[in-house]
Amino acid sequence: MVRPILKDLKDGKISIEEAEKLIKSQFLDIREVARFDIGRKLRTGFPEAILALGKDDDDIVQILLSSPTDPMIVTRLSPERFENIREEISSLEERGFSIKYNKRAHILVVKRDDKISLDSKVGIITAGTADIPVAEEARTILEEYGCQVIRAYDVGVAGIHRLVQPLYDMLEDDVKIIIVVAGMEGALPSVVAGLVDVPVIGVPTSIGYGVGEGGFSALYSMLQSCTPGIGVVNIDNGFGAAALAIKIIRAFE
Amino acid sequence: MVRPILKDLKDGKISIEEAEKLIKSQFLDIREVARFDIGRKLRTGFPEAILALGKDDDDIVQILLSSPTDPMIVTRLSPERFENIREEISSLEERGFSIKYNKRAHILVVKRDDKISLDSKVGIITAGTADIPVAEEARTILEEYGCQVIRAYDVGVAGIHRLVQPLYDMLEDDVKIIIVVAGMEGALPSVVAGLVDVPVIGVPTSIGYGVGEGGFSALYSMLQSCTPGIGVVNIDNGFGAAALAIKIIRAFE
Amino acid sequence: MVRPILKDLKDGKISIEEAEKLIKSQFLDIREVARFDIGRKLRTGFPEAILALGKDDDDIVQILLSSPTDPMIVTRLSPERFENIREEISSLEERGFSIKYNKRAHILVVKRDDKISLDSKVGIITAGTADIPVAEEARTILEEYGCQVIRAYDVGVAGIHRLVQPLYDMLEDDVKIIIVVAGMEGALPSVVAGLVDVPVIGVPTSIGYGVGEGGFSALYSMLQSCTPGIGVVNIDNGFGAAALAIKIIRAFE
Amino acid sequence: MVRPILKDLKDGKISIEEAEKLIKSQFLDIREVARFDIGRKLRTGFPEAILALGKDDDDIVQILLSSPTDPMIVTRLSPERFENIREEISSLEERGFSIKYNKRAHILVVKRDDKISLDSKVGIITAGTADIPVAEEARTILEEYGCQVIRAYDVGVAGIHRLVQPLYDMLEDDVKIIIVVAGMEGALPSVVAGLVDVPVIGVPTSIGYGVGEGGFSALYSMLQSCTPGIGVVNIDNGFGAAALAIKIIRAFE
Amino acid sequence: MVRPILKDLKDGKISIEEAEKLIKSQFLDIREVARFDIGRKLRTGFPEAILALGKDDDDIVQILLSSPTDPMIVTRLSPERFENIREEISSLEERGFSIKYNKRAHILVVKRDDKISLDSKVGIITAGTADIPVAEEARTILEEYGCQVIRAYDVGVAGIHRLVQPLYDMLEDDVKIIIVVAGMEGALPSVVAGLVDVPVIGVPTSIGYGVGEGGFSALYSMLQSCTPGIGVVNIDNGFGAAALAIKIIRAFE
Amino acid sequence: MVRPILKDLKDGKISIEEAEKLIKSQFLDIREVARFDIGRKLRTGFPEAILALGKDDDDIVQILLSSPTDPMIVTRLSPERFENIREEISSLEERGFSIKYNKRAHILVVKRDDKISLDSKVGIITAGTADIPVAEEARTILEEYGCQVIRAYDVGVAGIHRLVQPLYDMLEDDVKIIIVVAGMEGALPSVVAGLVDVPVIGVPTSIGYGVGEGGFSALYSMLQSCTPGIGVVNIDNGFGAAALAIKIIRAFE
Amino acid sequence: MVRPILKDLKDGKISIEEAEKLIKSQFLDIREVARFDIGRKLRTGFPEAILALGKDDDDIVQILLSSPTDPMIVTRLSPERFENIREEISSLEERGFSIKYNKRAHILVVKRDDKISLDSKVGIITAGTADIPVAEEARTILEEYGCQVIRAYDVGVAGIHRLVQPLYDMLEDDVKIIIVVAGMEGALPSVVAGLVDVPVIGVPTSIGYGVGEGGFSALYSMLQSCTPGIGVVNIDNGFGAAALAIKIIRAFE
Amino acid sequence: MVRPILKDLKDGKISIEEAEKLIKSQFLDIREVARFDIGRKLRTGFPEAILALGKDDDDIVQILLSSPTDPMIVTRLSPERFENIREEISSLEERGFSIKYNKRAHILVVKRDDKISLDSKVGIITAGTADIPVAEEARTILEEYGCQVIRAYDVGVAGIHRLVQPLYDMLEDDVKIIIVVAGMEGALPSVVAGLVDVPVIGVPTSIGYGVGEGGFSALYSMLQSCTPGIGVVNIDNGFGAAALAIKIIRAFE
Repeated sequence: MVRPILKDLKDGKISIEEAEKLIKSQFLDIREVARFDIGRKLRTGFPEAILALGKDDDDIVQILLSSPTDPMIVTRLSPERFENIREEISSLEERGFSIKYNKRAHILVVKRDDKISLDSKVGIITAGTADIPVAEEARTILEEYGCQVIRAYDVGVAGIHRLVQPLYDMLEDDVKIIIVVAGMEGALPSVVAGLVDVPVIGVPTSIGYGVGEGGFSALYSMLQSCTPGIGVVNIDNGFGAAALAIKIIRAFE
Repeated sequence: MVRPILKDLKDGKISIEEAEKLIKSQFLDIREVARFDIGRKLRTGFPEAILALGKDDDDIVQILLSSPTDPMIVTRLSPERFENIREEISSLEERGFSIKYNKRAHILVVKRDDKISLDSKVGIITAGTADIPVAEEARTILEEYGCQVIRAYDVGVAGIHRLVQPLYDMLEDDVKIIIVVAGMEGALPSVVAGLVDVPVIGVPTSIGYGVGEGGFSALYSMLQSCTPGIGVVNIDNGFGAAALAIKIIRAFE
Repeated sequence: MVRPILKDLKDGKISIEEAEKLIKSQFLDIREVARFDIGRKLRTGFPEAILALGKDDDDIVQILLSSPTDPMIVTRLSPERFENIREEISSLEERGFSIKYNKRAHILVVKRDDKISLDSKVGIITAGTADIPVAEEARTILEEYGCQVIRAYDVGVAGIHRLVQPLYDMLEDDVKIIIVVAGMEGALPSVVAGLVDVPVIGVPTSIGYGVGEGGFSALYSMLQSCTPGIGVVNIDNGFGAAALAIKIIRAFE
Repeated sequence: MVRPILKDLKDGKISIEEAEKLIKSQFLDIREVARFDIGRKLRTGFPEAILALGKDDDDIVQILLSSPTDPMIVTRLSPERFENIREEISSLEERGFSIKYNKRAHILVVKRDDKISLDSKVGIITAGTADIPVAEEARTILEEYGCQVIRAYDVGVAGIHRLVQPLYDMLEDDVKIIIVVAGMEGALPSVVAGLVDVPVIGVPTSIGYGVGEGGFSALYSMLQSCTPGIGVVNIDNGFGAAALAIKIIRAFE
Repeated sequence: MVRPILKDLKDGKISIEEAEKLIKSQFLDIREVARFDIGRKLRTGFPEAILALGKDDDDIVQILLSSPTDPMIVTRLSPERFENIREEISSLEERGFSIKYNKRAHILVVKRDDKISLDSKVGIITAGTADIPVAEEARTILEEYGCQVIRAYDVGVAGIHRLVQPLYDMLEDDVKIIIVVAGMEGALPSVVAGLVDVPVIGVPTSIGYGVGEGGFSALYSMLQSCTPGIGVVNIDNGFGAAALAIKIIRAFE
Repeated sequence: MVRPILKDLKDGKISIEEAEKLIKSQFLDIREVARFDIGRKLRTGFPEAILALGKDDDDIVQILLSSPTDPMIVTRLSPERFENIREEISSLEERGFSIKYNKRAHILVVKRDDKISLDSKVGIITAGTADIPVAEEARTILEEYGCQVIRAYDVGVAGIHRLVQPLYDMLEDDVKIIIVVAGMEGALPSVVAGLVDVPVIGVPTSIGYGVGEGGFSALYSMLQSCTPGIGVVNIDNGFGAAALAIKIIRAFE
Repeated sequence: MVRPILKDLKDGKISIEEAEKLIKSQFLDIREVARFDIGRKLRTGFPEAILALGKDDDDIVQILLSSPTDPMIVTRLSPERFENIREEISSLEERGFSIKYNKRAHILVVKRDDKISLDSKVGIITAGTADIPVAEEARTILEEYGCQVIRAYDVGVAGIHRLVQPLYDMLEDDVKIIIVVAGMEGALPSVVAGLVDVPVIGVPTSIGYGVGEGGFSALYSMLQSCTPGIGVVNIDNGFGAAALAIKIIRAFE
Repeated sequence: MVRPILKDLKDGKISIEEAEKLIKSQFLDIREVARFDIGRKLRTGFPEAILALGKDDDDIVQILLSSPTDPMIVTRLSPERFENIREEISSLEERGFSIKYNKRAHILVVKRDDKISLDSKVGIITAGTADIPVAEEARTILEEYGCQVIRAYDVGVAGIHRLVQPLYDMLEDDVKIIIVVAGMEGALPSVVAGLVDVPVIGVPTSIGYGVGEGGFSALYSMLQSCTPGIGVVNIDNGFGAAALAIKIIRAFE
């Protein structure tokens, strides 16, 4: 595909400048793109989130103030840490960004633009009260990306009957995906996936003690569910569940 | 909602039989349904698969000959075991079922009806040659359920450049979901999810030795990928990946 | 069984209201029950306990003030946390509930009604002094549910002879079940079960250091005891041991 | 209590031999008893089972031919191994013992006396077909000890509704204990314990692959069930579950 | 041996009271002994140590003030905790006990009697500086029991040559046992055992980070040493190493 | 840099074909290269090895017959499997390749060209006899790539003195890198690295039983060696050690 | 100490040869010793054992035929493998060695000289029948090294009373060390160490299933025994236990 | 080689003192060297680093003030701890040492002499921001030893394209070794090693949560990379990576 351009150049149909431009556009100049990662949002359908764990407050401030993406999402940022940086990032508001911190979900969202909106609804279910912060992390992300979320918290497997009504309501509301957040024995996603026909995303939580500490038992339960069709994300990773749901919705809408 | 029926009955507008039928239809008679699990396919959008591991050949024959679902899928059935039962299940062909065994994927599909068809395409990528059986398990299931599958095998992370072209082709072909099958360090789903905007389903495989034996390392890599939006299934669980993909597609088509 | 009712209605033997009531009583309206889980106590013979771990103080206050069950039991509530909520839950006393906090067992019991009483006695044995808090968690629950408890603490396996007398006394007192709480190598339940003819419930504790840290070693010892007939519960789960004992007693009394 | 004997001796009422015998009977001569463990059955309410794993065929033959207990139970004895020793233990039949081998449960029962009978019934539920051998191990033991067993196999958690009817029937039949056998994610005991008021014994099985291999995931799920009151035994230990059930029943009947 | 007593009684050589006393002394009245475990020191050659971990300060005070053994040893008692109880246990000094607290070893020794003395010498070697507290725990115990200890700290495997001289000196001094304390890769006991002909006791420590955290790697290295003849104790268990050494010495002196 | 070419073309100094070729050579056409991975050898300094594990014999034959790289190396190919494919790959000899199979190292090398030669020498040391196959895997690869290898097998840590002479000889011979292969406690690389000033590559092996089974203990010992400067590769990965050594040598020669 | 020799040389009192010899004898010429490891037996009090695992039959034959030590001990050599090499090593008999293979212990002993004899006795106890092969490995080694062994097999913790008599007998016989071999929950060494005053060596075995598989649970139980003074060796390592016992005895006799 | 010296002495060519000195220099007097480990730097090409973890502040001060090596490096020293000891070690400055503390890398370097310089350059790449402290630990060490370091931080695998340019630049700058620091899934070293021809040193970090906590997942990914030729060091061990790089460079320069 280079030859026709060269021929046109030789025949005088195009100038050297035009030829050069046409040729370059034929090659993916990876190195050029790499320098400024502005293409990411378009490319992967999802901006990078900033995991606050393992970063200093200074790191986070610096990333927020210099990053060109919109929105910017910081996960696992404790209320104390948010207080530490609140002042320093306030200049973002002058630059037209809104700053929203969700205390329960430990998430900071900095964005300019609110108009994204998706048609599909997502359901979020938690087994217990202690799983709610992880569920809220997922909810916050989903709503920021324009999804409508229907919640049913604390409907765990110990009383299966307690689960039926909210599940019924979600299906009535035509949710397309259900995110199930559960610690302890992690059985809830299996039970839900055995009752509904929409895809289920399982989020194990690190709630529990003894053999349940750390969330591995819940994780393994979800991975080897007897009911096929559960997509599992990392322990306590409400953000990841939301990201998967959004990617699915975008791929199909 | 029972009262109007009773009123109609009392008023002679409907017969006792009609009243009985109307009332029953208002209650989900769980116990009745439970006896014969024929409702499952409609309910969860996916028939049960029969995991051959841990079952005797006799168990499998008996399940196949007596089960009323269509299709019936047996996973992890080795060629030797298929040979053992082939004769005994041949009567299913007289009953109008086709019997298809995929040697590489170790899957047996028994079904009567081929007309299911889904519009969305699914891509399947493997890191290495040894991951192919798991990928083929996924492919077989997907194609049985009417998905068109685009494959790119052995494009692993050691030579990232080898991955770009097939990925490009898949996106050109408008695949909606990409299933990435990888053992060893399990890095491929991360890399793929960092390059495309469709949801990625990660399937770790038990390929590898030393610290890689059993597939846990690949599993963990996928679960904590830096790139959000990967739904992970159990190690070697090609079937589960296909089931998740089909559930997603059905929820949106 | 609906038809005779309909016939009676049609024949004017019963009113529409009566017919409606009779019909509804024939169906387990799961969805209705689910909304308010008041049926749980009767159904499973045991009210839900509230695990304080992973819940905010606010969560616990809210659950206590709004829950209709009697008794309400909060486990793993540290003295500090109890102090935090003591004020806020004091209104329960005006509503006729007593509030009892067991400092050693970290258990809060809120209840109105003390008249439950069971005939069977339960023995509780601990290997060491450090296992006592877990044993006390079990004892508190058992006594709240009307069991008489006979204790023998700190009789561990290092001096088997120290164990014989209390065991003998328990059998003399006709205990029906013995709960054995042990950390470290967790050998005590095996030894006890080898000497007595009543069922033994083993509770591993997280006491220990080095290979014993976390209690897994004690747990595994109990699970694979050479002496058959030990029912094991989660590490440090005195509550679960008590619940199992109460369920057994109720099933047989 | 020694003194009256001594007095009788001194008074010439009994001979030295008689006195010696009476005195000895008053002390538990542990060392004497230890040599021949005939006291075990009475003491712990349960004879020792012989675990075939790790023993040579010769070991097993020798133990069976020389052991004075009745019954004698050999667990984990494969059909091949039973064939190997069948001839050699046939002399037991001449000594009045019956020899029963259960192929599915891999259990050999050698006993003389069939008259033990217990009033209480036990339910056994399995999640899947592959869990049946472990369930059968439990059933064989229970029936040998005079329990009536009510079975419901393959009613797993993927279709909760499939579980309701058999559970209902068991409660109707007044089972006192339910043994729940489950591999994979091991959620079934939680679900059952959330629906019934009798004690539940959970038996994890090593069925599964990937993260489920070995049965640890099922074990952990059962140990940290949200529903209190589950007594757990070792992976694949149907024998232990039966032994626990029998000990419970004996303690209360 | 009862008969001669009976005969003497019959012959009037002894009274009924004497006969009774003689007979009883011939039986090990386990139950009586069990109540007061004073026999332990003689029986096992070692008094019980009190592990401070998992016990309240009150527990420890109570045990010390009421226990009749001499010496009493409390391990893992931090300096802060010693300060807390120092006042409360001071009454022991009035009762003739000395109270010695070793800050580095976190050990409290309360004893009356100093005259125990053993002939054999024990060597203690540590790989690094950070292993010294564990080594000091061993040294304190050994010296309390009358052993002479020869130390060589910080002679780790990274510079094998640094180890030769102290080892040589220990052998010159005729040490009978060498305790080797090592964290990280735990190779030192193997190396020492390959160079000397006295038994080696290996004590892994929890020093290290990454894969070395917790001390399991050091433990495993010692257990599978290529050099046979290393007796290993729990991670950080200097006390156990000392106890083993003392038992060995006592058995042979 | 495209413009001068275009100018030359326009000026008639070069033909269209020449211009096209020059332009293409300026862009790394990743997608084109990806199809045939011939560029790998130059790019990463090392051709891909074919891990036989997890691949069918057919897969391996197909890869060998169609792959254009030189050399082709198949690792973990058992003698039986080599026999199976020997016939089918013999056509490679007609195409000028030599076929060399190393029975001890389980390696197949197919290559045309023998002239690669490196100046630097590499030492290989094994702790025991059982580590030799892994060492031979490394040696075969090294020699195929032109390194001279100096071996000292079975000089393990149990007798440190046995190690000194071969180490001395290696340093005399001016080896630049020493590969140390060890299972069991894996202490040898630490000891070697503490004695020499050249870089050490540690290869843990899966030799051992009990806590040593699988090689993790050896791996962890090497990773947390007190002696800095050990580069570790996967368990049993002699190939990887050789590859690392070759890459180092090539980078510096 | 070199100077006087030099002086004598200078003074003509000794020849150059004599001076050279005297000087060399003053330095431990490690490198010279290393070549032929004949010094090992004297140095570490124990010849090397040859672990058959991981070695080819050829390796073993070669080691036996060329090794100069006496005795030579091969552990973990299955009867089949012994048959394979029996012929090839028969020449050793002509060289004056006796060849003894213990089928149960899987040990081969090749030695010339039988006169070693130690005064101290060692007791060996196993919990179950399946632990006997490991116990026999220890016994064989001990007897080869001149120890008298007193055995008590199958006296496990499930019936503590069964243990008392043999323990009593051992103490009567003045055993100096007791080796306790136990799988499953591994509680026996704790119990034994709580009853006797001689040192206890614990050998965990890999007997068991479920959580007991591999022997780790038994190992951990022994390491964290409540009774201090147990020296633990690797899982199934009867050889190591014997080696430790012999080293202890030699150090003190 | 002693003989010629002796001959010269005898011939009067050298004095006794000279002879003595010459002879001693021929023997590695290990025991003498051992006392003062001054030889280490020359011998292993690298002075010992002092790991602050597990050491008291007093230990560190004492080691620094008494150690004769130059430089002295303390790793894992938190800023708080450095403040604690700063005063006490200031006397080192009077002795001619410079004291440099790197706050981000938690490293203290005390040295007199700055003139070491190496020709080879080393690249350091991190996947994320949170990996930077570990990378800085490596950088500090490398620069102290005279290496020039080229950094590229936060170029992780989620956006492969972001990696290409810095990698290209490093190769242009002729780096000889690339150190890749990555937590989470640890895929970056694989990707880098698949793109460049210089050796790669992988440093896993403990960054991450859920399955990634502790860094084992990153470690395992690096160890089983599909790309051969990665040398891995312990989790978070930036120091070790630098040490390996320096040893490699020194061996070849």
